[in-house]
Amino acid sequence: MTDLFDRTRALFDLAEGVVYLDGNSLGALPRAARERVRREIDESWGRDLIRAWNTAGWIDLPTVVGDKIAALIGAPPGSVTAGDSTSINLFKALTAALALRPERRIILSDSGNFPTDLYVAEGVCRLLGRGLALKVVEPDAVAAALGDDVAVLMLTEVDYRTGRLHDMRALTARARALGVVTVWDLAHSAGALPVDLAGCDVDFAVGCGYKYLNGGPGAPAFIYVKPDLQERVQPALSGWMGHAAPFAFEPHYRPAPGIVRARAGTPPVLSMAALDAALDVFEGVDMAALRRRSMELGDAFIAGVEAASPDLMLVSPRSASDRGSQVSFRFANGYAAMQALIARGVIGDFRAPDVMRFGFAPLYVSPADVGRAVSTIRDVMGGRLWERPEYSQRRTVT
Amino acid sequence: MTDLFDRTRALFDLAEGVVYLDGNSLGALPRAARERVRREIDESWGRDLIRAWNTAGWIDLPTVVGDKIAALIGAPPGSVTAGDSTSINLFKALTAALALRPERRIILSDSGNFPTDLYVAEGVCRLLGRGLALKVVEPDAVAAALGDDVAVLMLTEVDYRTGRLHDMRALTARARALGVVTVWDLAHSAGALPVDLAGCDVDFAVGCGYKYLNGGPGAPAFIYVKPDLQERVQPALSGWMGHAAPFAFEPHYRPAPGIVRARAGTPPVLSMAALDAALDVFEGVDMAALRRRSMELGDAFIAGVEAASPDLMLVSPRSASDRGSQVSFRFANGYAAMQALIARGVIGDFRAPDVMRFGFAPLYVSPADVGRAVSTIRDVMGGRLWERPEYSQRRTVT
Repeated sequence: MTDLFDRTRALFDLAEGVVYLDGNSLGALPRAARERVRREIDESWGRDLIRAWNTAGWIDLPTVVGDKIAALIGAPPGSVTAGDSTSINLFKALTAALALRPERRIILSDSGNFPTDLYVAEGVCRLLGRGLALKVVEPDAVAAALGDDVAVLMLTEVDYRTGRLHDMRALTARARALGVVTVWDLAHSAGALPVDLAGCDVDFAVGCGYKYLNGGPGAPAFIYVKPDLQERVQPALSGWMGHAAPFAFEPHYRPAPGIVRARAGTPPVLSMAALDAALDVFEGVDMAALRRRSMELGDAFIAGVEAASPDLMLVSPRSASDRGSQVSFRFANGYAAMQALIARGVIGDFRAPDVMRFGFAPLYVSPADVGRAVSTIRDVMGGRLWERPEYSQRRTVT
Repeated sequence: MTDLFDRTRALFDLAEGVVYLDGNSLGALPRAARERVRREIDESWGRDLIRAWNTAGWIDLPTVVGDKIAALIGAPPGSVTAGDSTSINLFKALTAALALRPERRIILSDSGNFPTDLYVAEGVCRLLGRGLALKVVEPDAVAAALGDDVAVLMLTEVDYRTGRLHDMRALTARARALGVVTVWDLAHSAGALPVDLAGCDVDFAVGCGYKYLNGGPGAPAFIYVKPDLQERVQPALSGWMGHAAPFAFEPHYRPAPGIVRARAGTPPVLSMAALDAALDVFEGVDMAALRRRSMELGDAFIAGVEAASPDLMLVSPRSASDRGSQVSFRFANGYAAMQALIARGVIGDFRAPDVMRFGFAPLYVSPADVGRAVSTIRDVMGGRLWERPEYSQRRTVT
């Protein structure tokens, strides 16, 4: 197993001396992504020009990338397409899901969902009217809040703050029994742990390309539509790339068969190519082995930090099987403490109001990295380095 | 003037021997875009990692790029944001425009509009219901079809097939007098000719980053919202990047002031950076001079082609002032003829059913290029080279 992750680590370009524990926000740079984008610019765009849509296969990228992601999330080929942002894909999924339950009024979600998911759902309710409402409950109250008045259950599997993992299988089964359509956000799941969309009988899923999939800043997101629902979806975002014959320039929209109708406009090819190359890092990686590595890293980190400082309060589930691939601690001066860590080469991030978040991307984070992170945390906390004025100045993004 | 365009031509990386007349579909590669993307990958993503959202200014790119585009389309700073695709931005504009006229039912457009615009409008009508309908008339019947039952006038200024230019000023004035909200698509206008959004009192506009703006394949698109409407828009695509405080992670959507609320999800940074660098080519370019150059190129091309072959029927307006920056000819074997031209280094494109389309991007297309294109067309048409079997095989994108 060590050999596997030594091999994948070598596929990334990470500076010496950096312990990167923020791959849950922006994955590290795969060397292949750099080379691929260089080639797309120099050879495809620069030399083939418009012909590259054929010669470089740009036109098929959403499907090619989608199929690579599908393999990581338990989805069959032809059920995932890449493009747009997670927010936009969630809009597609929610409008499609609501159309399957026109007589119901409630989108159910939880307070641990990432804010953009809640914002997009609010926007859908406002736009469509007809009494639609977003109902937000505590994460552990979701199962009880499910009922036959709920149209859609919209959840993110891994809580972005705490790392708490929902039981996708049980919640989806309960939703299905009540006729509730499921929309799962895999932002912190895809590439971080095994997901079994088909086995759990999920209806729709969306996710992010720039976290554990390492596709680069703002990489295209993805959407999964369960195969037997694909032809029942009339896309709300009916752009030409989802048309059955985009280059026939027909006057009326006619959705493409299958997952292709979930495309909308022209995808950002350079960003998409980076994601395509990044996904090849997963070739030959057993997701169960990756999950074991992730759990070991998280467990070792928790043990180390708790021994190093009594001031950091664990907010993630202590049991690895209840966690995604991140560990978070609460600390009143967490912003400044994180800046002090970053200044010492240990890069995590901060989430308001007081959460210090550390992600463990098993493809490139090693047990030695965890050891170094722990000793740096001991230095920062023991020396109260977060009191230094240079660490308290806020920046836009942390 | 020649000096100006010699200078801008040198900013592009175009292979010797290629006459590129398809910048209206995918603009050529600006050298600065290559260098910029390389830097964003190697230095920002690879080295600064998550910190690059601050250090490399990624977080501000939509506004920075938007302001550069604004300067080319007669829009004030703070009225344009870049991101998403043209289709998605059109969805934003249409939903916002319809909300301003809740008592009206008709979106008026024309048969010369690009299909994705019509498709998106169809999708909006289907999604929102309430009797909304898309009404499509011939381009020269638009003015007469305007009435006080029309909610939104949605037009593309330059016809993608024929290059016919709408009178934006007159149509917008007539629409305004009837209380009709205007949504203009500048896909073939931005960077190709002077646009005066503010002077024409346009309400909403969208456009494309990968044609005359040379932002690269699938480059982010843009949206303009008239300043005094910005605060009246409740975004339908209410993603976190349009929130007033995206990193406060508030539970409810609260739109940002101004144009920022027109953002949705996280933008594709690599593609956005390429567009940002590409726009610097326009520094010091007088759009009136660019328009004169474009008209001269088009006029010379029409005269040359008509002298070279009687089989190509002009479908573009003969008068340069009625045309955008492209010239199209109809020819029954246009697909094969275009393949024969491309094989000889003259790259235009084909639009079904029978249109051969040639774009003149004045920043890098010269009078000498026009001369070479004309003589190659003479060879292909005179020698009936389009009859050769190797040119008739269809590819996905042309």
